[in-house]
Amino acid sequence: MKELVDRIIKDGTTRAGTDIVKVDNFLNHQVDPFLMRDIALEFKKIFAEEKITKILTIEASGIAIASFAAMEFGVPFVFAKKHNARNLDDDVYSAEVYSFTKMTSYVIRVAKNYLSADDRVLIVDDFLANGKALEGLLSIVKEAGAEVAGCGVVIEKAYQKGGDRIRSLGYRVEPLAKIKEITEEGQIVFD
Amino acid sequence: MKELVDRIIKDGTTRAGTDIVKVDNFLNHQVDPFLMRDIALEFKKIFAEEKITKILTIEASGIAIASFAAMEFGVPFVFAKKHNARNLDDDVYSAEVYSFTKMTSYVIRVAKNYLSADDRVLIVDDFLANGKALEGLLSIVKEAGAEVAGCGVVIEKAYQKGGDRIRSLGYRVEPLAKIKEITEEGQIVFD
Repeated sequence: MKELVDRIIKDGTTRAGTDIVKVDNFLNHQVDPFLMRDIALEFKKIFAEEKITKILTIEASGIAIASFAAMEFGVPFVFAKKHNARNLDDDVYSAEVYSFTKMTSYVIRVAKNYLSADDRVLIVDDFLANGKALEGLLSIVKEAGAEVAGCGVVIEKAYQKGGDRIRSLGYRVEPLAKIKEITEEGQIVFD
Repeated sequence: MKELVDRIIKDGTTRAGTDIVKVDNFLNHQVDPFLMRDIALEFKKIFAEEKITKILTIEASGIAIASFAAMEFGVPFVFAKKHNARNLDDDVYSAEVYSFTKMTSYVIRVAKNYLSADDRVLIVDDFLANGKALEGLLSIVKEAGAEVAGCGVVIEKAYQKGGDRIRSLGYRVEPLAKIKEITEEGQIVFD
């Protein structure tokens, strides 16, 4: 998606010695609603034939993407909770997700009421890197007996292997920008 | 806002012996994008004259509301982070927020880049009860030297005192549904 790639080039930054791509100017801290609407429209185009009934994401930064996508698809979205919330039912689907950043696991939860075997689910998120969060969401959809129509991610770090591993399981994974490499000088190379 | 009150009556639930109003069917776990758009339009109507330049909220459930509001106002939004995120700058505004639920304090943070003295800020959130999170956000706007145009909350629990305390400081606080009481039988009484 050209608009997104241009924006990453213009406003994204990298941090020397890390693989971090900072896009908190427009995607995951400050959020540009016009770009988000265009991202949602792009997902709508890609998954137009998929008869999506529900969008699933994970808190926190997935929520903005899911909000705009839900509007364009005209279906509700659900965000998996990472933190114990007192307003969450006991009756939940759950999955354990390993975080490489924090070197620990956490549990994500979705109330059973909000995913059913009748659903065709589009999973969306801001980043796909090692794929652990996405695998957790896929596991929850499977537990619900629902069908995964596909995964729409805004930015895939293709030099990590999450996307390829999930594709090899037969899922459709569609990134809007695919980063092949971050050079030692911190330059972002797109696929 | 009649549509919202009707929806709370239809789909909201209470839990005996607590003051919890569960609206996770449409507001803060599963999210109905059509209701959210109407909520955003209502905020737009209420704050139409305020020359808002930025919307501020707090993760996680505020993000959906801010997403739709940002679209209607045509301005970016920023969500304060509750959890240490490795992609957040060190250069932040921060505030400590006491959580009555968890009986502990946490720190919320906004990167200094995304709020400035030129901003007129609309703060939005899903719930206003004791007002501690909202006070944290107000403190961050003040630290940035920006102006608070107002606070738009979806549901105020008026039997807790946060809203009145913040109004008494001179801020404009506009709830779209105001709950006066939850009876012992768990019935929600609106103001």
